[in-house]
Amino acid sequence: MEPYQLSLSQAAAAISAKELSPVELIDSVLARIDAVEPRLNAFATVTADRARKTAADAAQEIVEGTYRGPLHGLPLGVKDLYETAGVPTTSSSQVRASFMPDTDAAMVADLLEAGMVMVGKTHTHEFAYGATTPTSRNPWDLERVPGGSSGGSGAAVAAGECLVGLGSDTGGSIRIPAAVCGTVGLKPTYGRISRRGVASLSWSLDHVGPLTRNVVDAAHVLAATAGYDRSDPASIDAPVPDYVGELAAAEGRDLTGLRVGVPTDLYFDRVDPRVEASVRAGIAQLERLGASLVEVGVPYARQMRAVSWGILGPEASSYHQEDLRNSPDLYTEEVRVALEAGELVLATDYINALRVRTLIQSAWREMFTRIDVLAAPAVPVPAPPADAEVVTWDDGVTERPTDCLVRLSVPANITGLPALALPCGFTTEGLPVGMQLIGRPLEESTLLVAGQAFEAATDTVGRLAPL
Amino acid sequence: MEPYQLSLSQAAAAISAKELSPVELIDSVLARIDAVEPRLNAFATVTADRARKTAADAAQEIVEGTYRGPLHGLPLGVKDLYETAGVPTTSSSQVRASFMPDTDAAMVADLLEAGMVMVGKTHTHEFAYGATTPTSRNPWDLERVPGGSSGGSGAAVAAGECLVGLGSDTGGSIRIPAAVCGTVGLKPTYGRISRRGVASLSWSLDHVGPLTRNVVDAAHVLAATAGYDRSDPASIDAPVPDYVGELAAAEGRDLTGLRVGVPTDLYFDRVDPRVEASVRAGIAQLERLGASLVEVGVPYARQMRAVSWGILGPEASSYHQEDLRNSPDLYTEEVRVALEAGELVLATDYINALRVRTLIQSAWREMFTRIDVLAAPAVPVPAPPADAEVVTWDDGVTERPTDCLVRLSVPANITGLPALALPCGFTTEGLPVGMQLIGRPLEESTLLVAGQAFEAATDTVGRLAPL
Repeated sequence: MEPYQLSLSQAAAAISAKELSPVELIDSVLARIDAVEPRLNAFATVTADRARKTAADAAQEIVEGTYRGPLHGLPLGVKDLYETAGVPTTSSSQVRASFMPDTDAAMVADLLEAGMVMVGKTHTHEFAYGATTPTSRNPWDLERVPGGSSGGSGAAVAAGECLVGLGSDTGGSIRIPAAVCGTVGLKPTYGRISRRGVASLSWSLDHVGPLTRNVVDAAHVLAATAGYDRSDPASIDAPVPDYVGELAAAEGRDLTGLRVGVPTDLYFDRVDPRVEASVRAGIAQLERLGASLVEVGVPYARQMRAVSWGILGPEASSYHQEDLRNSPDLYTEEVRVALEAGELVLATDYINALRVRTLIQSAWREMFTRIDVLAAPAVPVPAPPADAEVVTWDDGVTERPTDCLVRLSVPANITGLPALALPCGFTTEGLPVGMQLIGRPLEESTLLVAGQAFEAATDTVGRLAPL
Repeated sequence: MEPYQLSLSQAAAAISAKELSPVELIDSVLARIDAVEPRLNAFATVTADRARKTAADAAQEIVEGTYRGPLHGLPLGVKDLYETAGVPTTSSSQVRASFMPDTDAAMVADLLEAGMVMVGKTHTHEFAYGATTPTSRNPWDLERVPGGSSGGSGAAVAAGECLVGLGSDTGGSIRIPAAVCGTVGLKPTYGRISRRGVASLSWSLDHVGPLTRNVVDAAHVLAATAGYDRSDPASIDAPVPDYVGELAAAEGRDLTGLRVGVPTDLYFDRVDPRVEASVRAGIAQLERLGASLVEVGVPYARQMRAVSWGILGPEASSYHQEDLRNSPDLYTEEVRVALEAGELVLATDYINALRVRTLIQSAWREMFTRIDVLAAPAVPVPAPPADAEVVTWDDGVTERPTDCLVRLSVPANITGLPALALPCGFTTEGLPVGMQLIGRPLEESTLLVAGQAFEAATDTVGRLAPL
């Protein structure tokens, strides 16, 4: 087994026992990057020299007895939407081709402080405005997209190019690539992790979080990055639980007492039968683990799309207004058209969308008095082909791939609720299928505990793509 | 002296000493209403029978030894924008001609609980969307407007038709009628008093508060109504100081240590020379009382108008959207046109206005590290004639009366800062001139203490109009 194949827990154990040096691990990861990047193109920038230097520093620190903890010396991929000091930060766009920040985004700073070694910047769908990441490919099938917008992080984690990939999630951009690349993806509660230094798509829907290979890895990242930051206006000033400790305490226990909501609408409407079968099998697995299943109707299911567009469209267009006027041709046509469309939204429509969001949040709060988590598909389909212009359904209805991919993830952005995407199976063609668990505000631990039990009972979580 | 002429403190003292019965006081006020309403039309509805009954109940309670405190038995005028159980609440509009609420607005409920006697509903500029209140007249000159939108409350308090008039203030609607009618007007900090049950004009700028004859009266009303209410999303959960106690403790003291900001721009641009002279004399009076004067530039002075319109226009149009579609002809033309204009605002413009508001708030916070209060004219002109279609300046520039009247009051709505309007003089024609003091968030006491000292040193506060 090559070091890049180790899980986070295995690598951390080996490093802390001084059986593995961060230098060996990072060298193995960089070799893996060299081997697979020509096919995947998951990275916008690979920071090999810097990573070797940081790994050497980490090795030295550890030799001298300063072990910073379970993330020390482990390889990190950072979505190119996150500012990184001295490293180009393009948001995968010509608009920012020459942007070189001088500080790190909050989440990056926290993880570097915890000892992680950044190996590069991963591709995003341009400015996170799309769910396919056309720059990059899916490691399970190179003819398919890695999802998005955090598609580079999804591909990189699934291919063994890093152990943790950072993502951002405005309509599903962490959970979608996690689902179609077969990784774990955690979108925490709105405001739980600071977004300082991450380019905004739609600030009232934007979340940041990790893509990882296993559930406990996500807990480690969350533990190192959650907390209040006054420089993010949405940041929540609430105590940070001991996520890793709670997982350890729950290890080996079943899920007795957990009420799992099974949606009777929205989440199983127009869903690929292979996806539905895998997710329903995953839900049955939760029941075998002791959880009780509760059927629930999804409040405001029909309003989700209009509300998300009514908010995201104009917020994105406002953020990009100056660049769109000064250099429209630097955007890809797809994103430029979306930004121009967002400029046409009326203020009253935006305001009405915000008002309906408040109603949705209140109705979902009520739903969550009857359940502890909601279990559902993360996306309606396995990874679409890279050349697909539409997803076509049996009845002839077509959707743009991005519209299709975000359809089931966007409710957790509108509500701001934490959501964990987990691989729950594979199609006969070998494409991963993702399930998501959605929880109450700030109850990430509930999702992680359920995810850990699911992971232990199945063999679907933690696989590397056979590239 | 008739009972209606008593100040709040005098009336309260007489009632608590059982030298005056609430019945006598309310009868005197109702007689005054009968005498002046044909000329003023300050009230949309006079609730004489109910007031007599409530006054009799109050008298009975007091005779039996249950004295509720200094507001018990005192006459209250309620802006017709506030819902009142079992009493028509028209917002001075045909759109709500038949609206009969079944509960009281939060502020009304609190004041009735404190023992006040509602004598009627005062006129508002239709739905608070304007600053002239064309239904009503100014008691100091019947050919002039009482300001607005709380024009009925301004006229009623100044004419002795009630001791407290409730107002709401989205762009100045408490301070403008207070200034041009010669009363005190307090717009507290955004979120300090619950707006539950008050028709919204623009929820992110809306404030509620009292118009009163004297400064201490405003403190009594604030004390009875300030505090957290989870049913108002803007409500602030912060301790409520002892406003009346702080005023009592400060009585007789001078203002040594108080830093009064004197604006070098915005507030003295295009201001009637009579208003400027009165306000500068008022500021000099504050200095004679021991305050130190500090000249300050006003941050974002030139952005105020665009920001206020960019927020208020679409929020108002969103609130009225259904009625505007179903029954546009029930609105007055002026308000209908404004609502239709607000429907044309783009979402990006609204969002940009919200973003600039954040910058303004931050820059003003910085300004208030150098000063404790900002002193300025409340409105640029004395009450305009009722038939004026424009206010014309020496250089030929014209403004609509509403645009002119709100120009100096709107910054305290954008910033959400508390502001106290005080009569600081009269023109040679006998028209009142108003000064406003603006303070730091939740520091209403600072404004009230300064206002009380000013009131004690001058003879401009507390006068009744000689009708």
